[in-house]
Amino acid sequence: MTYTQDEFFINETLKLAKKGVSWTYPNPMVGALIVKGGRMIGKGYHKVFGLPHAEIEALQKCKENPKGATLYVNLEPCSHFGKTPPCVDTIIQAGITRVVCATLDPNPKVRSFGLAKLQKAGIEVLVGVLESEARTLNEAFFTFHEKKRPFIALKFAASLDGKIATRTGESKWITNEKARKYARSLRGQYQAVLVGINTVLKDNPHLGVRMKGKKDPLRIILGQRVQIPDDAQVLRDQNVLIIKAKKIHDLLSVLREKEIISILVEGGGSVLGSFVDAKVVDKVYAFHAPILVGGKKAISAIAGQGVQTISQSIHLKNLSYKRFDDNLLTIGYVV
Amino acid sequence: MTYTQDEFFINETLKLAKKGVSWTYPNPMVGALIVKGGRMIGKGYHKVFGLPHAEIEALQKCKENPKGATLYVNLEPCSHFGKTPPCVDTIIQAGITRVVCATLDPNPKVRSFGLAKLQKAGIEVLVGVLESEARTLNEAFFTFHEKKRPFIALKFAASLDGKIATRTGESKWITNEKARKYARSLRGQYQAVLVGINTVLKDNPHLGVRMKGKKDPLRIILGQRVQIPDDAQVLRDQNVLIIKAKKIHDLLSVLREKEIISILVEGGGSVLGSFVDAKVVDKVYAFHAPILVGGKKAISAIAGQGVQTISQSIHLKNLSYKRFDDNLLTIGYVV
Repeated sequence: MTYTQDEFFINETLKLAKKGVSWTYPNPMVGALIVKGGRMIGKGYHKVFGLPHAEIEALQKCKENPKGATLYVNLEPCSHFGKTPPCVDTIIQAGITRVVCATLDPNPKVRSFGLAKLQKAGIEVLVGVLESEARTLNEAFFTFHEKKRPFIALKFAASLDGKIATRTGESKWITNEKARKYARSLRGQYQAVLVGINTVLKDNPHLGVRMKGKKDPLRIILGQRVQIPDDAQVLRDQNVLIIKAKKIHDLLSVLREKEIISILVEGGGSVLGSFVDAKVVDKVYAFHAPILVGGKKAISAIAGQGVQTISQSIHLKNLSYKRFDDNLLTIGYVV
Repeated sequence: MTYTQDEFFINETLKLAKKGVSWTYPNPMVGALIVKGGRMIGKGYHKVFGLPHAEIEALQKCKENPKGATLYVNLEPCSHFGKTPPCVDTIIQAGITRVVCATLDPNPKVRSFGLAKLQKAGIEVLVGVLESEARTLNEAFFTFHEKKRPFIALKFAASLDGKIATRTGESKWITNEKARKYARSLRGQYQAVLVGINTVLKDNPHLGVRMKGKKDPLRIILGQRVQIPDDAQVLRDQNVLIIKAKKIHDLLSVLREKEIISILVEGGGSVLGSFVDAKVVDKVYAFHAPILVGGKKAISAIAGQGVQTISQSIHLKNLSYKRFDDNLLTIGYVV
């Protein structure tokens, strides 16, 4: 990859931004860099929801006066009061003379207002540098504001013949330890993890990341509190939302109101099937172990109603693969 | 790969042998090379069942007198009368002084007799050069003689969630054109292709290789002749065997008697499930398209009874992968 200087510094902001993964929701991950005379004199990232934005962090951490410097940031600086005051005011006050950002804010209520205010103050503005990479980093945030619903990722771990459990319901373990560890780490990339009541009753999962420095996601259970035993693992932390939603679109409205910008749907087959049937899927993580389980009555990775014709099926694009010894993870997007 | 001289020449015999693919059954694929003073003076391979063996071809094609030369061959030369007279006699008469071969003959009735006869005639004999590669080349032939049944490969083309057809039975097409073309070419590597009657009735497949220079396999249909329409594609060639076998082991006995050394089982789900349930599987070709079909009532790649516990499932080893654009083929062995 060959970068221009602007691309190089924007790429650095993306790396900084990623450090906030799992802690910024419902805010996006943002990194910022102050560059003067080609040298980085300040950097920062949005660490935790409620704490200062990346731009403010970077300005505060400057080793020399940022007057006349360029600010690099992967998202348009905000111009409104939220948990913190508008970043653009601080940027103007600091004497920044050029702002380079990867993308505009996806929220139509504030989109381009920040840049307009900067331009009005005489600051040179460049937007669209590594835009695609920046959108991918905050795919959940962009989807939430553009589609008015959470970014939805489905995850399953199946045999080559698509079974997530044998006919007797046994599922431990289809995939190997490395693949399962990676699957747990995925939870740290989502604001919430969602499972059906049957998964809670059958597998008694904790649904946490179980990794230092990563925040556990909100656990969403489709069902009723009365169905869940008091000593269920999933209730161990206080971070649980139990929803008795019959329809996926009702569920999505509830999650939108609660500002849940991303969910990882972990199953079982019926719950995954509901999302596929409703065609609300943005990303899929399909783990496959090299085994054949068989069985007309075994449990399929995606149940539900299902499509009638192959052309109606959900097609994944932008595929990537990860190998965990002899297990394979296919990651794809619905575009 | 670094080869010794013997390995180099044996590797050449493997390449020659492969030219006979699809034409030698129930014989193995064999290539032979005559080397004198470090130069290849003759080469041959077993072209078609009933035609001369590779060793005889190579001797007949010698550009100079093979007296004092070394014979390289990937399988022990035969010492018995079959469709052709014993090769060892011709080798001895030709004045060959050294024989290098990759493997012994797997048939216990003749195994090592050929080499013994050569040694008795004062010929230096070396066995076991690139043995593993030579066994893989003729995996069907070795399995047939060692396990007393055909080598059984299962093939299916599924969605990521393991469906080979939607709930309405539609299956055209799950995989892309490149993947399907490769799947057809696989038929040329097997003596027979096997499907259930439902596949014949639903898909009306021809089950041929449809490739120049490749012999179409014998088509085996599990069912009864009366069930098949006279104009079915699969009946177009004369090369069809219809078997009303209820149990897989009965079927295997019939195939063994008929000297069918390898079969490619193409479906549907119930037929594939029968082989998985009976645990008679040697190799699996699992094609996956990056789609989600869903549906509790959709058709699963492997139906049948299925295993009770994950540990009872069929585990594949020695995995390899082939990509056809966004489709993926996983090839594995049951060992």
